Amino acid sequence: MTILELPEASVAPLVRAVADAPDRAAVGERFARAAWSLVAEPGDGDAGRLVAELGAERAMAALVARVREEPAPGEPRIPDAALQRWRGRVGAGAVQLALRQAARFAAALVVPGDDDWPRGLDDLGEHAPFALWVRGDRAHLRALDRSIALVGARAATAYGEHVTMEAAAGLVDRRVAIVSGAAYGIDGAAHRAALASRGTTVAFLAGGVDRFYPAGHDQLLQKIVERGAVAAEVPCGVAPSKWRFLQRNRLIAAATQATVVVEAGWRSGSINTANHAAQLGRPVGVVPGPVTSSASAGCHRLLRESEALCVTTPSEMAQLLGEEEPIGSGVDADGGAADAPSPLDATRLRLLDAMSTRSGRESERIAIISGLAPDRVRAELGLLELEGLVRRRPSGWIRTVPEPA
Amino acid sequence: MTILELPEASVAPLVRAVADAPDRAAVGERFARAAWSLVAEPGDGDAGRLVAELGAERAMAALVARVREEPAPGEPRIPDAALQRWRGRVGAGAVQLALRQAARFAAALVVPGDDDWPRGLDDLGEHAPFALWVRGDRAHLRALDRSIALVGARAATAYGEHVTMEAAAGLVDRRVAIVSGAAYGIDGAAHRAALASRGTTVAFLAGGVDRFYPAGHDQLLQKIVERGAVAAEVPCGVAPSKWRFLQRNRLIAAATQATVVVEAGWRSGSINTANHAAQLGRPVGVVPGPVTSSASAGCHRLLRESEALCVTTPSEMAQLLGEEEPIGSGVDADGGAADAPSPLDATRLRLLDAMSTRSGRESERIAIISGLAPDRVRAELGLLELEGLVRRRPSGWIRTVPEPA
Repeated sequence: MTILELPEASVAPLVRAVADAPDRAAVGERFARAAWSLVAEPGDGDAGRLVAELGAERAMAALVARVREEPAPGEPRIPDAALQRWRGRVGAGAVQLALRQAARFAAALVVPGDDDWPRGLDDLGEHAPFALWVRGDRAHLRALDRSIALVGARAATAYGEHVTMEAAAGLVDRRVAIVSGAAYGIDGAAHRAALASRGTTVAFLAGGVDRFYPAGHDQLLQKIVERGAVAAEVPCGVAPSKWRFLQRNRLIAAATQATVVVEAGWRSGSINTANHAAQLGRPVGVVPGPVTSSASAGCHRLLRESEALCVTTPSEMAQLLGEEEPIGSGVDADGGAADAPSPLDATRLRLLDAMSTRSGRESERIAIISGLAPDRVRAELGLLELEGLVRRRPSGWIRTVPEPA
Repeated sequence: MTILELPEASVAPLVRAVADAPDRAAVGERFARAAWSLVAEPGDGDAGRLVAELGAERAMAALVARVREEPAPGEPRIPDAALQRWRGRVGAGAVQLALRQAARFAAALVVPGDDDWPRGLDDLGEHAPFALWVRGDRAHLRALDRSIALVGARAATAYGEHVTMEAAAGLVDRRVAIVSGAAYGIDGAAHRAALASRGTTVAFLAGGVDRFYPAGHDQLLQKIVERGAVAAEVPCGVAPSKWRFLQRNRLIAAATQATVVVEAGWRSGSINTANHAAQLGRPVGVVPGPVTSSASAGCHRLLRESEALCVTTPSEMAQLLGEEEPIGSGVDADGGAADAPSPLDATRLRLLDAMSTRSGRESERIAIISGLAPDRVRAELGLLELEGLVRRRPSGWIRTVPEPA
């Protein structure tokens, strides 16, 4: 019995339960997307192209026809290599099982076109996911419209976790949703701080949302379900794997407007997330750390080898969203220039350099010491006197401020 | 009595003593350059243009004529504003005094065209120094042909000093001379480590080389004189000033092939050095640090706002010189990619992901779990078996390695 042969009576209520399908056509399309999310591995471009061309339901029907070796006329050929990959997964009752499991865990099936569908995922083109399985209030996915991915090393240091907490809290203050992968270390700190600041946070998992991973983050993920959302492109029952972690990273990069890497070892998976973001044209921010810390080696590598921008504060991270920050809103607002002084500043600097706070000097003498023209010195002294920076004494001019500006 | 009226008998031996002048003409030119280094403040473009046009001696003669209000015919007009700046300093016996002081401190006068003249300074154009006053073996200036400026905050942290010491030692190992400004903090650590590694180090001062600054670095500067060189563009007797510190920074940037900022506060003077280097087209390296450390705020600012490159090791700093490092020479040589795996790696990753180290699985089952085509799985399993990564058991295939690559 192939996927599409499941009696409608047995699946339609399930699809309706998890996918909020308005009509018969929608049920079919959603069911087919659920099936595709099971048949093809994440990021399978052949499947993506086929679904984009035909729609999920017709594409699945074409696949089933090919598996039965009775090609429907007029349907595009399914590449042999792709067929080989997919055929073993067609025909199992796995979709029904996944839907049943989703219903049990109150996981929603969100598909492209839904109001809650994260628009950013569409930028993945033929590698976009077919659907998202979501636990928690699916409406929270809308917050992804203004979100930043905070990712980093599992083996984070106290420094990295501290910076992550500050970052997440500061971004929540700026009404930015925090997205991460629920891993130990930086990811966990990001979700936790977002929850503590009463912000919105979304976790993307590499396996099904019915099995929380890592197990040690069971409680944290439960809290995210209660106050945010936990999402995956693979259906319930699918185990996370290295490959799926790498593919999951592209969802984090695509669903957000910018990715910030806080700490990352030389080969950290978060570098993979950053590369996905860069490929999508999303800005990447990198938090530097001590060069003596191997937990920052990947960050520094990104700074050297990619277009990633150095970010040190929540304000700088929020700037990655490309919005103008209202003046004075930044926690760390600081103007000032350490660059070469302007010509006017230079004159004053040289003039004040040439004066003493104790012994008075005639303007002619100040001119010689400073190397400035005497009439310039006289004019400038007059202005500085008005500002209270210098004073005329019987013995000559003195500086009233101990340290020149 | 103006500068040029000093009786030759009184200055020629002095000039010869400090400037190694071969003939009468050279004595005159060198003496005039010494005079210009006293009359004009560092970086005075009017003076630079005049000396470039006429040579130092004729330019000084022109200035003296203007001061006496008897312009020599055919000489270019000296701008009034410049005349006002310079006239107060013409006529003092200060050059003679500076030369006498230089002779007392065994300071050499090095001028453009000398073998020891640092070629890089010529890139400053009309803002180039007229001469350098040098204590220590002037031949050490030739090491500037392959040198890096290591500069940073006076208020350095233990982290910054540690990184500086490692940097200087590693660069000396690569036969790079270390240049800095002899200040407390990073500068001092750079000179000290270069000396400890028996490398060449050159310090540029903002005041005359007869008066070491800061006083607490008297011993350090004495050691640099013994085994390297201490240089200044202002003559002996001239006090350092804020303005002269900023101008001194351009010498450090110009004399070296690259500038590395190790730690710098938000308004650190070393940012000024980095900006000079960037203006000259010299590469700038920046060592990142914890974002929680204000001593690294200026470094991160440079990473954000300039073309500066993030550098974390001596090897990466040496790469700023634009030479190819011999393969394997780097202390921190490390290849490997954390980027997306190549297609071949991806297949193996997915295949190994789908296997267990304990329970045997048939290739058909592995194909379904991995989402790979069965014939691909069979071919790959054969290769992996040859490499010893998988093994055939009665129950099916198992993985022999606990962790997929």
